[in-house]
Amino acid sequence: MARIRMGMVGGGNDAFIGGVHRIASRIDDRFELVAGALSSSAEKSMLSAKALHIPRSYANFTEMAAAEADRDDGIQVVSIVTPNHVHADAAIAFINKGIHVVCDKPLTSTLEDANRLQDAINNASTLFVLTHNYTGYPMIRQARSMIEAGALGSVRIAQVEYPQDWLTTSIENEGLKQAEWRTDPSRSGAGGSVGDIGTHAHNLACFVTGLSVESLAADLQSFGPGRQLDDNAHVMLRFAGGARGMLWCSQVAPGNENGLKLRVYGEKGGIEWAQEDPNYLWFTEHGKPKQLVTRSGPGANDAANAVSRIPPGHPEGYLEGFANIYTELADAIIAMQDGKSRQQAMGLLPGITEGMDGMAFINACVESSSNNSAWVTL
Amino acid sequence: MARIRMGMVGGGNDAFIGGVHRIASRIDDRFELVAGALSSSAEKSMLSAKALHIPRSYANFTEMAAAEADRDDGIQVVSIVTPNHVHADAAIAFINKGIHVVCDKPLTSTLEDANRLQDAINNASTLFVLTHNYTGYPMIRQARSMIEAGALGSVRIAQVEYPQDWLTTSIENEGLKQAEWRTDPSRSGAGGSVGDIGTHAHNLACFVTGLSVESLAADLQSFGPGRQLDDNAHVMLRFAGGARGMLWCSQVAPGNENGLKLRVYGEKGGIEWAQEDPNYLWFTEHGKPKQLVTRSGPGANDAANAVSRIPPGHPEGYLEGFANIYTELADAIIAMQDGKSRQQAMGLLPGITEGMDGMAFINACVESSSNNSAWVTL
Amino acid sequence: MARIRMGMVGGGNDAFIGGVHRIASRIDDRFELVAGALSSSAEKSMLSAKALHIPRSYANFTEMAAAEADRDDGIQVVSIVTPNHVHADAAIAFINKGIHVVCDKPLTSTLEDANRLQDAINNASTLFVLTHNYTGYPMIRQARSMIEAGALGSVRIAQVEYPQDWLTTSIENEGLKQAEWRTDPSRSGAGGSVGDIGTHAHNLACFVTGLSVESLAADLQSFGPGRQLDDNAHVMLRFAGGARGMLWCSQVAPGNENGLKLRVYGEKGGIEWAQEDPNYLWFTEHGKPKQLVTRSGPGANDAANAVSRIPPGHPEGYLEGFANIYTELADAIIAMQDGKSRQQAMGLLPGITEGMDGMAFINACVESSSNNSAWVTL
Amino acid sequence: MARIRMGMVGGGNDAFIGGVHRIASRIDDRFELVAGALSSSAEKSMLSAKALHIPRSYANFTEMAAAEADRDDGIQVVSIVTPNHVHADAAIAFINKGIHVVCDKPLTSTLEDANRLQDAINNASTLFVLTHNYTGYPMIRQARSMIEAGALGSVRIAQVEYPQDWLTTSIENEGLKQAEWRTDPSRSGAGGSVGDIGTHAHNLACFVTGLSVESLAADLQSFGPGRQLDDNAHVMLRFAGGARGMLWCSQVAPGNENGLKLRVYGEKGGIEWAQEDPNYLWFTEHGKPKQLVTRSGPGANDAANAVSRIPPGHPEGYLEGFANIYTELADAIIAMQDGKSRQQAMGLLPGITEGMDGMAFINACVESSSNNSAWVTL
Repeated sequence: MARIRMGMVGGGNDAFIGGVHRIASRIDDRFELVAGALSSSAEKSMLSAKALHIPRSYANFTEMAAAEADRDDGIQVVSIVTPNHVHADAAIAFINKGIHVVCDKPLTSTLEDANRLQDAINNASTLFVLTHNYTGYPMIRQARSMIEAGALGSVRIAQVEYPQDWLTTSIENEGLKQAEWRTDPSRSGAGGSVGDIGTHAHNLACFVTGLSVESLAADLQSFGPGRQLDDNAHVMLRFAGGARGMLWCSQVAPGNENGLKLRVYGEKGGIEWAQEDPNYLWFTEHGKPKQLVTRSGPGANDAANAVSRIPPGHPEGYLEGFANIYTELADAIIAMQDGKSRQQAMGLLPGITEGMDGMAFINACVESSSNNSAWVTL
Repeated sequence: MARIRMGMVGGGNDAFIGGVHRIASRIDDRFELVAGALSSSAEKSMLSAKALHIPRSYANFTEMAAAEADRDDGIQVVSIVTPNHVHADAAIAFINKGIHVVCDKPLTSTLEDANRLQDAINNASTLFVLTHNYTGYPMIRQARSMIEAGALGSVRIAQVEYPQDWLTTSIENEGLKQAEWRTDPSRSGAGGSVGDIGTHAHNLACFVTGLSVESLAADLQSFGPGRQLDDNAHVMLRFAGGARGMLWCSQVAPGNENGLKLRVYGEKGGIEWAQEDPNYLWFTEHGKPKQLVTRSGPGANDAANAVSRIPPGHPEGYLEGFANIYTELADAIIAMQDGKSRQQAMGLLPGITEGMDGMAFINACVESSSNNSAWVTL
Repeated sequence: MARIRMGMVGGGNDAFIGGVHRIASRIDDRFELVAGALSSSAEKSMLSAKALHIPRSYANFTEMAAAEADRDDGIQVVSIVTPNHVHADAAIAFINKGIHVVCDKPLTSTLEDANRLQDAINNASTLFVLTHNYTGYPMIRQARSMIEAGALGSVRIAQVEYPQDWLTTSIENEGLKQAEWRTDPSRSGAGGSVGDIGTHAHNLACFVTGLSVESLAADLQSFGPGRQLDDNAHVMLRFAGGARGMLWCSQVAPGNENGLKLRVYGEKGGIEWAQEDPNYLWFTEHGKPKQLVTRSGPGANDAANAVSRIPPGHPEGYLEGFANIYTELADAIIAMQDGKSRQQAMGLLPGITEGMDGMAFINACVESSSNNSAWVTL
Repeated sequence: MARIRMGMVGGGNDAFIGGVHRIASRIDDRFELVAGALSSSAEKSMLSAKALHIPRSYANFTEMAAAEADRDDGIQVVSIVTPNHVHADAAIAFINKGIHVVCDKPLTSTLEDANRLQDAINNASTLFVLTHNYTGYPMIRQARSMIEAGALGSVRIAQVEYPQDWLTTSIENEGLKQAEWRTDPSRSGAGGSVGDIGTHAHNLACFVTGLSVESLAADLQSFGPGRQLDDNAHVMLRFAGGARGMLWCSQVAPGNENGLKLRVYGEKGGIEWAQEDPNYLWFTEHGKPKQLVTRSGPGANDAANAVSRIPPGHPEGYLEGFANIYTELADAIIAMQDGKSRQQAMGLLPGITEGMDGMAFINACVESSSNNSAWVTL
């Protein structure tokens, strides 16, 4: 089984997330990165490509899509790791050429872009994977599978939070690129923290519980002086079927690095998971002692073991969780080649549906907050 | 310095909280319990009093207030540990006789009762202490003092939660007294979880930050089938001065025993504290590693040390934190004898103000929730 | 059931452990402290007694034993909380008068004293309780009971450690009394850290496993410049029956406050407990996920519940664990009055046997270490 | 900078450690795996090679060394991941051909083999790296660097432990290959747990403290019925310069998955690190609160940051730590090409010295234990 030929758009310059995607695609040795349009200038792109052993470099994604589609050994999939406002155009360029796409989240910076992208996907037969990478963690798969099997009974409550502290001070005014575009509505979209990390929290709560958010009431704040986008958000959630929840995301909570945490409680039990200690899942069957289930350990189930590599006590981390998304993407590409339907091939992979849900989440948060936290239906 | 003579109303029968008050009053040896009206019947009261070495037993609190006020060696303070709906009448009976009162929370079961009680206190010169006992923990005192001194800068965010799991199933239908009255509006008042534990969470957030809640938006649920009062509540908070927060309380979250937890973030730093591990306070100065401050340890400040008894690493717990309230009450009684004003004597002790704030919190939660989570001003 | 009349020897002046014994004796309201010889001078004793509401003060323990034995309402039990070298004479004085004794550990400062004390006890019918207080923690009782019932299968390994850091620098030269006598062989005996805290660790391992140490090999160090007694000790243990263990105690391990920790592993499972978080017991049945058993929680057994006071999630601490020893002492005194044998009355209480075992442990550590860590039979 | 051409000996069949080496070599994209002798039979090797996209497969390492040395594009380095008894012959075959070697630990199964290997290395100019992979963790690099810079003052105590539970029952009799050879002296050597994991613990303590073990006293046990090698070991350590320590390793401690843990204490402070939560380093400056230093976080130093990939709160794990060894090996190979000395090129990489130290450790443990725990000089 040959490696999948992959290209990349963006990710050229000390861009954190580009490097993550590259490592993630390498861990299980299922991809080879053979083409790139890594930066906004042709020259910079070339230099980055060279440094990264990428044989073919292009000036921009349009050229790249055209040229690669023409080659017999052209890329089968492209990874899009640009700022949000570029996602739609870049993805559409490849989709229209029949090249599969894996794209960083959130989907796009505007709803219009999202709709255009959705249309393109609907009119094509390529795969579109959105890297809600936290769904790739083994213990998240375990939690989802347990809840699906009824281990908690009917779900009543989901508490999800995602605090960070990197925007506590106004570093967007001090030349930090990452902070600049994240706080700029023209590049990030209408949501600040709700777009960057709130979408992850929202996605994870839905992925694990199997429920969708029916409506929400939000109170968004911009604590950073002069900041145009929210850097902290408080959201109350009502899930279809009667479960309720709360979501907190923040980029101004000192002492929190990447504190994504999910807790779900049902009629019969509860589970708790924290991204910073991802190899552990707390499970309580009501009326019995809490259990600490460990990745690959005695309580790990098939869903978790399917995406684990090494024995218990040998911690896997963020990159391995991310790699699971890439490895399942490789499997999905093979499955499509083998004639499976796009839906079958996707399996648990997050895609356009999750992307549109995330856009709806962002927009509902902004609308609710500007309407004094009135409930908004998603 | 002689011990303070104390009486007790309620707390006779395997009542959890009565026993807690008795131990708390004993730990620092500042009280002797000499009178009681411990149960609803004179005979039961007598038996309980005998078992507890309490010399004088009364049929009810009215008799007790009258008789004790007449004695030269009558009680100086009474501890009221009945269900909520009895608080007001019992407290007023003693206040009117010039006897100090320490009363379990929440203040009363109705706003009318609360107002009557407030009037009685205003017209008297006795002390009234409400046992928001979690304010007695040393590391909570430390946190309050640090924030007051500006260690976090201006406060932006307060996250407070208080999950429990004891009402996950409908044990109020299985003869558990504690569960019966807690879920009965005629004895508990309009709030279920928001009254029983939400008030503690609200009080603690205000105590530590020094801020008051200006308005809130709440979504209350009763997950227990047929339950009349809320057993889970999601609340968004707006504090005076611009800080924002969230409050979650629940009695149906399996795996949570008594999970009161407070996190406060400001412009310069953050603190985190959990009641179940009360000897630790996490403190982050933004841009530096997290510190784990321990009770009596090297980072403990005067405010914490003033209410600690034993060296670091020798854990103090719930009873010691509760005892701090009693010991400060004893000091306050002495201070009043020495001519201090009631306000001076109270110091950090929670009293009628905190009680009225708690009633306002409960009522605002109920009102907001019944009005589809509209913001309600407290 | 009247309170037990108690006296106290030592504990007068800002002595940490005297205050602990007094609080411990008060928590369950089973004792009244009515007599004391609290300091080395009659005047100081008197002042301390007055401050502590103790009606009868004596110049020394000899006078006190004589006078109290003569009174109809004399003390029934005396608590001895002096430095180690006074234990034997003080205890014998009361034992010879038929007054029960509760004494701080270690038993004495010399083996000769220990033997004299043992003789006195053998010739009397009074109770002698040694406050190995850590055996009073509910989760320690749970662990012992589980192991006795075979939950771990045959025990193979016991790892016990007790690191502290208070002697990291030479504070005995800076006027700290506590540090002065603890590092002085004439007052502490042959063991430094092994006597002060190693005995606790040794006792706890034996108490929980039900095993006795057959032989040990020790390497003792005095890291503090000029320090005469060990401040750090490494010990390998061989238990009767084939189990093996290690014991580490230290007073020079920065970052460790009172880190007593016990881990026991058997053919079928393991348990882990840490004194600084005493309400938790980790239990692993081999091949299943770890369980976190909590005090009063769903997995707590009868042995633990018998010595717990408050619901799960409401932390009990050091003082409550210590109080359990006092409360069982009160029960034991009643049991003796009711005609039970001394052995029956003692139940799980640590006494002269555990005291002699502790002396043997100290002496074996010192002997082994001075003999280049040769195995020494206890 | 082209990728380094790598070969592999062993690691063909569901061998845990072979897969780990392959992922580790891929994470930073510095190697391409182009040749292998992956199994004991030529046919199995071929099948494995094919499945792993390895172009050249050999029947055995002798053939492979000869053929690759003859090619212009032959491998530059070989990774040896066989059972211990094959290490020496395989490594020597490549060393003699001038091919660099990276080899799994422990060095060899016998001292004779170790000496032969050492001789071969001494007579060659190739690199020899032993994968004491735990030295690759960023927070371990941080700890070493802090201690080197004097953050703890002079080191007094090192406590290291490595408990596992996978041999609690006699699974070597149930067909588990991994367990079979690990418990077989002819394939593992004289040490069981001391060889497999004790060497890691010993190496880590030395690496971090910068100290060497001068002598040790050991008590080894085989709890598994009929087991020939130790499955649990207790060791007391004396370091050159006066520091002392303890080492515990076990494969029969239920509830421990891969519990390597190191604690080091000096005159001025202490550090604590646990492999299962590798992104955290506890640091205490004596007399100040404990600090939790996080990988890439505000307290991380240059030594840690040099081997970190992603931001704080995004956990790296075992594979990333392992990858750091491979990436430094790639750097070392380049450095040699650039004319650096072998010693300079090695930098912090563990090599033959650490391998010989590990052999000495194993042999001293076995000798001491068979001599009733007498101190043995290393």
